[in-house]
Amino acid sequence: MIGYGFMGRAHSNAYRRVGNFFDLAYQPVLKAACGRNRAKTQEVADRWGYESVETDWKKLVARKDIDAIDICVPNDLHMEIAIAAAKAGKAVLCEKPIARNTREGEKMVAAVEKAGVANTVWYNYRRVPAVSLIKQVVDQGLLGRIYHYRANFLQDWTISPDVPQGGAGTWRLDVDAAGSGVTGDLLAHCIDTALWINGSISSLSAMTETFVKKRKHALTGKMQAVGIDDAAAVMTRFKNGSLGLFESTRYARGHKALYTLEINGEKGSFMWNLHDLNYVQWFDHRTEGRLRGWTSILVTDGEHPYLGKWWVPGLSIGYAHSFIHHLADFLEGLATGKAASPTFREALETTKVCDAIIKSGQTGKWQTL
Amino acid sequence: MIGYGFMGRAHSNAYRRVGNFFDLAYQPVLKAACGRNRAKTQEVADRWGYESVETDWKKLVARKDIDAIDICVPNDLHMEIAIAAAKAGKAVLCEKPIARNTREGEKMVAAVEKAGVANTVWYNYRRVPAVSLIKQVVDQGLLGRIYHYRANFLQDWTISPDVPQGGAGTWRLDVDAAGSGVTGDLLAHCIDTALWINGSISSLSAMTETFVKKRKHALTGKMQAVGIDDAAAVMTRFKNGSLGLFESTRYARGHKALYTLEINGEKGSFMWNLHDLNYVQWFDHRTEGRLRGWTSILVTDGEHPYLGKWWVPGLSIGYAHSFIHHLADFLEGLATGKAASPTFREALETTKVCDAIIKSGQTGKWQTL
Amino acid sequence: MIGYGFMGRAHSNAYRRVGNFFDLAYQPVLKAACGRNRAKTQEVADRWGYESVETDWKKLVARKDIDAIDICVPNDLHMEIAIAAAKAGKAVLCEKPIARNTREGEKMVAAVEKAGVANTVWYNYRRVPAVSLIKQVVDQGLLGRIYHYRANFLQDWTISPDVPQGGAGTWRLDVDAAGSGVTGDLLAHCIDTALWINGSISSLSAMTETFVKKRKHALTGKMQAVGIDDAAAVMTRFKNGSLGLFESTRYARGHKALYTLEINGEKGSFMWNLHDLNYVQWFDHRTEGRLRGWTSILVTDGEHPYLGKWWVPGLSIGYAHSFIHHLADFLEGLATGKAASPTFREALETTKVCDAIIKSGQTGKWQTL
Amino acid sequence: MIGYGFMGRAHSNAYRRVGNFFDLAYQPVLKAACGRNRAKTQEVADRWGYESVETDWKKLVARKDIDAIDICVPNDLHMEIAIAAAKAGKAVLCEKPIARNTREGEKMVAAVEKAGVANTVWYNYRRVPAVSLIKQVVDQGLLGRIYHYRANFLQDWTISPDVPQGGAGTWRLDVDAAGSGVTGDLLAHCIDTALWINGSISSLSAMTETFVKKRKHALTGKMQAVGIDDAAAVMTRFKNGSLGLFESTRYARGHKALYTLEINGEKGSFMWNLHDLNYVQWFDHRTEGRLRGWTSILVTDGEHPYLGKWWVPGLSIGYAHSFIHHLADFLEGLATGKAASPTFREALETTKVCDAIIKSGQTGKWQTL
Repeated sequence: MIGYGFMGRAHSNAYRRVGNFFDLAYQPVLKAACGRNRAKTQEVADRWGYESVETDWKKLVARKDIDAIDICVPNDLHMEIAIAAAKAGKAVLCEKPIARNTREGEKMVAAVEKAGVANTVWYNYRRVPAVSLIKQVVDQGLLGRIYHYRANFLQDWTISPDVPQGGAGTWRLDVDAAGSGVTGDLLAHCIDTALWINGSISSLSAMTETFVKKRKHALTGKMQAVGIDDAAAVMTRFKNGSLGLFESTRYARGHKALYTLEINGEKGSFMWNLHDLNYVQWFDHRTEGRLRGWTSILVTDGEHPYLGKWWVPGLSIGYAHSFIHHLADFLEGLATGKAASPTFREALETTKVCDAIIKSGQTGKWQTL
Repeated sequence: MIGYGFMGRAHSNAYRRVGNFFDLAYQPVLKAACGRNRAKTQEVADRWGYESVETDWKKLVARKDIDAIDICVPNDLHMEIAIAAAKAGKAVLCEKPIARNTREGEKMVAAVEKAGVANTVWYNYRRVPAVSLIKQVVDQGLLGRIYHYRANFLQDWTISPDVPQGGAGTWRLDVDAAGSGVTGDLLAHCIDTALWINGSISSLSAMTETFVKKRKHALTGKMQAVGIDDAAAVMTRFKNGSLGLFESTRYARGHKALYTLEINGEKGSFMWNLHDLNYVQWFDHRTEGRLRGWTSILVTDGEHPYLGKWWVPGLSIGYAHSFIHHLADFLEGLATGKAASPTFREALETTKVCDAIIKSGQTGKWQTL
Repeated sequence: MIGYGFMGRAHSNAYRRVGNFFDLAYQPVLKAACGRNRAKTQEVADRWGYESVETDWKKLVARKDIDAIDICVPNDLHMEIAIAAAKAGKAVLCEKPIARNTREGEKMVAAVEKAGVANTVWYNYRRVPAVSLIKQVVDQGLLGRIYHYRANFLQDWTISPDVPQGGAGTWRLDVDAAGSGVTGDLLAHCIDTALWINGSISSLSAMTETFVKKRKHALTGKMQAVGIDDAAAVMTRFKNGSLGLFESTRYARGHKALYTLEINGEKGSFMWNLHDLNYVQWFDHRTEGRLRGWTSILVTDGEHPYLGKWWVPGLSIGYAHSFIHHLADFLEGLATGKAASPTFREALETTKVCDAIIKSGQTGKWQTL
Repeated sequence: MIGYGFMGRAHSNAYRRVGNFFDLAYQPVLKAACGRNRAKTQEVADRWGYESVETDWKKLVARKDIDAIDICVPNDLHMEIAIAAAKAGKAVLCEKPIARNTREGEKMVAAVEKAGVANTVWYNYRRVPAVSLIKQVVDQGLLGRIYHYRANFLQDWTISPDVPQGGAGTWRLDVDAAGSGVTGDLLAHCIDTALWINGSISSLSAMTETFVKKRKHALTGKMQAVGIDDAAAVMTRFKNGSLGLFESTRYARGHKALYTLEINGEKGSFMWNLHDLNYVQWFDHRTEGRLRGWTSILVTDGEHPYLGKWWVPGLSIGYAHSFIHHLADFLEGLATGKAASPTFREALETTKVCDAIIKSGQTGKWQTL
C-alpha cells in the first residue's frame, strides 16, 4: 500500500474486511505501508495492522515478500510506480484515473501486459450493488435499444476561493499533480461506468471552465494560476447509436458527492445516484399501463449483486463497501485467472475519453475517438 | 348553494367546471347563492355567476326553480337544512361530515330516504384519481388478504394559542359549531376512505387530547374552554380481520394537509398522500424479486380514473379536481339512477365511527360498532 | 380563440376561471371560437360558452366586437394570423413558440410593435408558482454569483415508430407544421425559463438526433422522411459567466412531461420539476452546517406567488393553473399598461436560441448569439 | 462473544473495525468465540480472528483472560449468562432486548449493579448518526414543547405460513425463545429510541394480533400454536405531555426493515427512517415562511455525530456502522468511567414498556407505567 490519504483508508478497510465477508482462495496479508513521512506511515500501519513501513516506494517494490502493490498516491506518481511494480512482477492495483493522461496510461498498460501481472484500476462505483444490477439487466437486453445515457458528478467543495491548490488534501486542484480537474477526478467515474454499461463512445464535444482563476499553492504559499477544469460538460455519441450527456463540477452548491446516472432504453430505464446508493429506480414498460411507473428497488436482498454476503433485506451498506466488492472480485480473479475489470487496458479507455474532453473544451471542436 | 366559505368556493368551482370537461346528461345551473350577509353573498354570486341571492335558507328551500341544495355551512346547521330540503323534494349535497353526531345524521338519513331524493356527502378524497385507483385494484383482489390499513391526517395550523375558536374561519375549533375537533374534520376523511376501500370497522380504541385548553371565542371575545379534540389516535379492527391505525392532529409542525394512507395486503401494498396527490406508491409482490420495489405511479394517464377528461400524461391536476369528479359522478347518478357514493346512509357510518372515537377517547375503553 | 386542440382547452379553461379567482379590471368575454370544422368548433363553443363560431380566421380578425385574438394553432400559422390581428388592432396572445423560426418571429414582433397592441406568448411555466418563486429569490440575490443552470424536458411518447407525423394530434412531428421537433416544442420552455431567470445566453453548442428516420404522414398516408429533431442536447455559456446544460427528448422511457430545472449559485441552489410542480427544492448555504440540506418547499402558502388566490396551505394546484396565472397577469397588464412577460419581443429571444441549437446540431459548431 | 448468528457477525465486525476508525484508550482483543457447535464456531473464529473457541459458555465465563462477555444468543439465554458473567466480574454487553420480560431483566440489572461491572444493551439505532443528531437537537430545545412522537417498524418476511418457528434463523417466532414477537424484536427499538429522545412513557394502550395461528416448529417438526404477536400497535402518553403512536408488524408487504420515527414540536420537527439512514428530515419553523419546508439533511459531514471518523461529505455509511459507534462509546466509557447508554437499567425501561404492551394487547385496557 503506497499512500495513506483518503483512498489509502478506503483500500485498507477493504483489505481488512474482505475476508470477513467473502470466501476467497486468496486472503490479503498486509505486509507494508509506504509513505514519505515515517511517523505518519507508522501510525497508519499500527492502525490498520500493516506489518512494516517503508518511506521509499522503490524499496517496497524491491521487497521479495510482497506480491501486490496498491497505488494510492496522486496521479503524477502512478506511472513510475506502476511500471516499476510490473517490472518487479508484482500484481498492481492502481487508484483511478490510471494516470494523468493517455500517454502515461499507455506506458502503464504496456508494462503490465509485458510483465503479465494481474492489474486493475479502482473504479469502485462499478461494484455498488445497484450499479452492478443495472449492468446485469442491461446485458440481459431488458432495456432494448438504448437511446440515452446521462450522468453527472456534482460537488460544491471548491466554491470558496480560499481553498488552496496542491498539498495533502488539495492536490486534486493542482494540474501538475492531478493532470486535470473534475474531468479526471469525477467525470472519469461517470465515463468508466458509461463505457462499461453502454459501450464505447465514438465522438464528443465538451465545454470546460475554470471559475476561480488563481489559488494559493499549499506547498509554495504563492498565488498561482489554476490549471485545472473546475467544471466540464460533455455531449457524446455512443457506438450503439445512443446519445450521452455528462457533467461534473465542484461548484454545484448543495451537492456533496452526487454521482447520478440514467439510461433510457426502448423497453425500460434505470436511474441511480450515489447519495442513495442502496436504491435504483427502474421503469419497466412491460408492466400493465395502469400500474406502470418508476420502481424504487431497495438493493439489499440476497438476490442482488454482492448482497448475499452482507446483512438481511432492508439493511443498507455504504460507500466503502464498493471497494470491498472490487477487491473480492480481484482476489477471485487471481484464483480463476479471469481479470477483474477494469484492467489497466480497460481503464485507459476512460482516460482517452477524458483527454478528448479536455481537448474539446480547449478547441470547441468535436473529437472523434 | 348555502354558504360561501372555503368549501363554498371549492363547490362553486366544481359546478362551473364540470361541464367543460365531462359529458353529462345534466348540466348544473347556478340558480342562487345563499348567505346571511347580503353584500358578501352578492359578491360571491357575481364572481361565480349565481343568478340570484338569498339571505334566508328557508326561502331558498321554498323556491320552485331550485332542484338541488348544496349545504356548505358549519356542521351545526346541516341537519335542519338537509331535512327541510329533503321535505321540499330537493336533491341534497352536504359537506362532510354529515352532521355533528350520529343522532343528527340518523335524522338526515331518514329524511332523504323518506323523501326519496338524491343525496350525497362531499367526501371528496374518494375521487382523487390515485385513491380511486387504489379502490379499483383492491376490489380486483390484487392485494390478496389485507393485514393492515393506516392513515394519518396531519396539520399544524392551530399550534399558536392565539388562534381563536368560533367565527368565520375558525368555527372548526368551536365544539358547538363543529361537533368535534380533528375527529370530525380530518379523521372523518381517513375513516371514510378506509370504510370504502377496506370495509367495516368492528371495534376501536382511541386516545384524544386537547393541547390548548382555552381560546378566545371570535364571536364573544371571551376566553372559553376548548371543547374539541386537538389530536386523536385510533386503533381499529376491521371486519375483514385486518388492523387499522389512524391519527389526526393540528399540532404536527411542518405538515399542512398531509393526509396519508397505506394498505398492506398479502400480495401487494399501496401508499398515497395528499401532498403528492397525483402519485400513488404500489408494491407488487408478483414482480421478479431482483426488480421488486415500490413503484411510483404518476396517475395522469388516460387509463387512470377520471384522467381521460383532463390533459396528457405527466400533467398534473390539483386538489379542487376531486370535487369536480364527485360532482360528475353525482350528475351521472341522477341520469342513471345509481347514487353517487357516499350517500347520506354511507356517510353516516363514518360519523358512527367518529362518535365511537370520541367516546373511547373519553372513557379509555374499546368500543364495538 | 383560434384552434381547439389541447392548448385551446387549456386556454379556454383559463378564460373561464380567471375571474372566479382573481380580481381584475378586465374580465374576458368569450366572443368566438374559430376552427376549420364547423361542427367541431360549435361543439367546443357550446362546451366553453363561446358566443359564436367562425370557420375562417380572417373573418374573426375582421370582427369589430373582438378585442383580442388567441392563437392556438400549429406553428406554421402563427405568423400570418398574428400579423393580421395586429394590423386589425387586436391584442394578440400566441401559443409558444412564437413561430417556426426567427425570421417569422421578427415579422411578428415588428407587426405588434408597429400596431402598438398588447401581446404575449404563452410560456406558461413561468407562472407555475414554484418557478415564479425561484425567479423572485434569484432576483433578490440570495443565490449570489451563479455557476450553473441545467434543464431537461423528457418525454417518451414517440418511441414507437407507428406514431405518425402530421395531422391533428401529431403535427408536432411534422417539420413543416412545427418548424422543429423537441427544440421548439420542449427545449423552448427550458430556454424561456432560463433566459427569464438567468439572463441571456452568449454562445452554445448542440447535438441533435432523429432516431426514427421515416414515419407515415397522417394527412398523406405515406411514409415520409422525418424532418424534426427527436432529441437535442445543448451546452451554453450565459452572459453572467455561468454554464448551461439542456436536454430534450421524446425517447426517455418512463418520463412523461418531466421538465426539470436547477440553478446553482454561490450561496444557494434551486431544483424544480413539472411532475411535482407544487414543490421546489432549495439549498440555503446560510443555514448552520449541521442542519443544512435541501429544503422541500411545498409552494401552497398564501405568501407564495399566486397562491393567495387559491385554497389553503397544503392543497395543491395543477398544470392548468399556470395558464390562469398567465392570463391574470396579462389582463392586469392591460389595466396597468405593464406588459405581461414574455412579450413577442422577449419570446423571440427563445426562438433565436432554438434556431442556433438547430444550426449547431447540423454543423457541429459553436454558435454565438 | 457468545453466539454467531446475524448479530454475532454485526458485533464481530464492530470489534474488528472500531480501532481502524476511532482513537480509543482500550482496543478490543478477540479472545474467544463461543457456540454449541465446535466446527461452526471454529469457522467463525477463523473468519473473524478470534483466538480460541469454546462450546460451553460457562467455561468462557470462567476464563481469566477474558474481560468482557458479549451475549448474542436468543433472548431466553440472556439472563443466565449475564448474571454469571457479572458474578465473574466481566463487563457485559447484551443484545437487545435485555431479556424476555421485566422479571428476567430486573435480575440482570441487579446482578451487574451488584458486581459493579460495565454493562450495555445493543440498542444500536441510537448511534445511527441521523438519530444521534435528532437527540442532540431535541436536547438543545430547538423543537420547543413536544406534541407528538410516532414510530413504526415494518417488515414483511413472515407473511408466508411456511416460515417455521424456532430454530436457527427463526427463533424470533418462538415465544419460548423470544419472549414476545414484534414487540420485543422491533417495537423495542422504537421504544428505546423514544424513551431516549422524548423521555418516559406514563401510560399506554395496545392492540396485538397473531395472523398465522399455527406454524411448524423447526426443532420439533410439528405444527404448533404460535405464541408470539405478529403485529402490535400502541398509543402512549409521555410524561412530557406529548402523545405517542407506535406500530410494528412483519406483515407489511413491501417493507423490509422500515423503522421510521417522527417527532413534532412547537418550533420544529424531525423525521427519519432506516431505509434512508444517512438522511434526516428537519422542519425549522424559524425559517422565513416563503422558504420554509422539510430539509433533507444528508448526515455525512464532519460536523455530524460520528461522521468525522469516516469519509468525506456525501459518502454514506451503512447499517453496521451503528454497532461500531456503540462499541466506540462503550470503550470510551470504560476509559472515562461514564457508562455508554443504554445500560442494563436503562434498557430495562424498554422491556417494562414492552411487557405493558403485551398485557394491554391481551386485556384491552390502558396500562400505567
